[in-house]
Amino acid sequence: MGDPLDRDAALALDMADPLRAKRAQFALPEGVVYMNGNSLGAAPVAAASGMDRAVCVEWARDLIGSWNLHGWIRAPQRVGASIARLIGAAPDEVVVADTTSVNLFKLLVAACTHRSGRSTILTEPGNFPTDLYIAQGVAATLPGRTVRTVTADRLSEAIDDDTAVVLLTHVHYRTGAMHDMAAITAAAHARGALVLWDLSHSVGALPVDMNGCDVDLAVGCGYKYLNGGPGAPAFLYVAKRLQDQLASPLSGWMGHGTPFAFDDDYVPAQGISRFLCGTPPVLGLAALEAGVAVFDDVSPADLLAKSRALSDHFIEMVEARCAGQGLTLISPRDASRRGSHVSFAHADAYALCQALIARGVVGDFRAPDAIRFGFTPLYLGFEDIWRAVDTLATVLEERAWDRQDYKVRAAVT
Amino acid sequence: MGDPLDRDAALALDMADPLRAKRAQFALPEGVVYMNGNSLGAAPVAAASGMDRAVCVEWARDLIGSWNLHGWIRAPQRVGASIARLIGAAPDEVVVADTTSVNLFKLLVAACTHRSGRSTILTEPGNFPTDLYIAQGVAATLPGRTVRTVTADRLSEAIDDDTAVVLLTHVHYRTGAMHDMAAITAAAHARGALVLWDLSHSVGALPVDMNGCDVDLAVGCGYKYLNGGPGAPAFLYVAKRLQDQLASPLSGWMGHGTPFAFDDDYVPAQGISRFLCGTPPVLGLAALEAGVAVFDDVSPADLLAKSRALSDHFIEMVEARCAGQGLTLISPRDASRRGSHVSFAHADAYALCQALIARGVVGDFRAPDAIRFGFTPLYLGFEDIWRAVDTLATVLEERAWDRQDYKVRAAVT
Repeated sequence: MGDPLDRDAALALDMADPLRAKRAQFALPEGVVYMNGNSLGAAPVAAASGMDRAVCVEWARDLIGSWNLHGWIRAPQRVGASIARLIGAAPDEVVVADTTSVNLFKLLVAACTHRSGRSTILTEPGNFPTDLYIAQGVAATLPGRTVRTVTADRLSEAIDDDTAVVLLTHVHYRTGAMHDMAAITAAAHARGALVLWDLSHSVGALPVDMNGCDVDLAVGCGYKYLNGGPGAPAFLYVAKRLQDQLASPLSGWMGHGTPFAFDDDYVPAQGISRFLCGTPPVLGLAALEAGVAVFDDVSPADLLAKSRALSDHFIEMVEARCAGQGLTLISPRDASRRGSHVSFAHADAYALCQALIARGVVGDFRAPDAIRFGFTPLYLGFEDIWRAVDTLATVLEERAWDRQDYKVRAAVT
Repeated sequence: MGDPLDRDAALALDMADPLRAKRAQFALPEGVVYMNGNSLGAAPVAAASGMDRAVCVEWARDLIGSWNLHGWIRAPQRVGASIARLIGAAPDEVVVADTTSVNLFKLLVAACTHRSGRSTILTEPGNFPTDLYIAQGVAATLPGRTVRTVTADRLSEAIDDDTAVVLLTHVHYRTGAMHDMAAITAAAHARGALVLWDLSHSVGALPVDMNGCDVDLAVGCGYKYLNGGPGAPAFLYVAKRLQDQLASPLSGWMGHGTPFAFDDDYVPAQGISRFLCGTPPVLGLAALEAGVAVFDDVSPADLLAKSRALSDHFIEMVEARCAGQGLTLISPRDASRRGSHVSFAHADAYALCQALIARGVVGDFRAPDAIRFGFTPLYLGFEDIWRAVDTLATVLEERAWDRQDYKVRAAVT
């Protein structure tokens, strides 16, 4: 890409950025470069007014009538349909419900039951912990099932006739490494296995294509690049062709065909709604709906191009300006094999992260030694990342991270 | 109780009501008598400001740092401890998480696994649908388990050596009939079974006593009498003596002993936190925390006395003023055997309910033929219920319900 960006070049790129106007749709604090949208997305300006309406008008004034009057009861399907557009799915293939963890459990149990003659959930070591933990919980609950972990380089060849389902996170939470969704899905199908993709670190930053890749099942997070608010409800995708063949073990009343008939026997709804469980989290959905609405006029190609340009320039600037300061890139260098965050290893990554936060550059630490920077194409610009690298270089040159109070770990790291 | 209340007598009771000041802590619309707090509780005034702070200060300004700075990460335990006080549990026996349905699944699977030599989940027909549906889902997931339903009058004697767990809703959603928690729990324990009480229609309206009744397990709803907002997160209770013997099948990362170590293997947290699963729903928790805080200075005895007085007077007034109009009480007449709502059967219950709502008296319909009135002791007064009965009597005398547009059922009934 030639010489690393200087500030003027960065400003010029910002001027030419087709997503530039999106920044004004977010309520970010002054003076902060927020590179942690991959962990908790920033607040859309519309989230405050949307939530105020949900609390003060819908809940407080219209009370119980809001289930019909304000469409609360269809919010899981309505917001699901908006997310479907971002992941290459049909509107009736996605629903918002529960958490990523709970949705993983539903779909893993459904997949294992559907492939009842096969015993293995295949995944990779170092997958996001809740994916591994939930898979272990499924194996402990269903008799005769086991979780097998195989490193990414040998995954496709490890899929065999005993594999019920391949469970992978599309973009790795720590390194940003991205799997080849089409190739692994095809390999799984060739051996008769189902695939379940966790899109938590992809959706909203990179276009993904459920239907184009013939994906069976997916889950994803609402509070990262979708900017749905802390602990936002999650979503799940089930390919249309499979919906009526799969059963959710979490057969709560909202997945019933006629929930307000109050029958004693569970009869699943037709279609994606059968994967709902309890009463929808209306307030959480209101914030998530505001987050997803920001994407309405965003081109997936613009999103991807900007994600790659931001992260490519960042790597190049860091390596030019921070050479010899103990940082090692642990993300793939090739942008086409990477998601929208970049991680560097550093011997004192935790303290370094704290020092950067103290100077307004917010990345995060991931155990044991990674500092992670997220590139949200909607609200980060090129001058922002120039400033982040400038700050990083200064902190390293001054050894500003080498303070005892930066080394004391908080509850959430 | 003597003659039914007239309006002056009702106003006099309001003047003497120790909970009278609580009404001002709720944002209820003018001219509405809201008798549906058993379905969706009213909005506390503090919910709007609490949510505004959560969205505009915690999320938008302090971003990811709020997990530590604003105590998001401990909110499930903190709000759980506040609820514990209302149900006779220790602070570390309750946690807020997920939905009632999901919590039922966790605890039913844990109970069945803990009583592995027993095959039956015992419950009653007509229990709240999601309780039955989730039990059926558990039976479909765990091999060899079945759901057995026995009517309330024969329940205790039906508990036998094959009963793993007795699952009951303490107060019946339709009739308001209340089980004898102490007697049934003792009967279950005498036969070696566990009990799981659904407190959704009790908590916040009636004192219940988990420790006093030696209850093993319980779940409950945040959006009814706790006034936590539409689709609020739910809670679960596990007796201290059982916590480290039970395992949640939904072994998500927030139930891990060290979630931020990002280990590959699931090791459950000690204590109640092992029943957490995914990332806490922070915004929903903020509203629920405001709802629960209203109870801080409320005496359980006052709550119970007012709930009973309101519902006793209501029944008496309805039967005096609406005699011969086709209403039949389907709730227990004895307040000590009843929760905090009262239902009447009527041949056109749905239309009658709509006619009442049109005149500002909000109860709800429950299939097939019940109209249900909830008595929230915190924000309903005696003059309110006098007015509700006056409206009901007028609607019946004028046959105001007999209109075609009142008979068209909405999606949520």
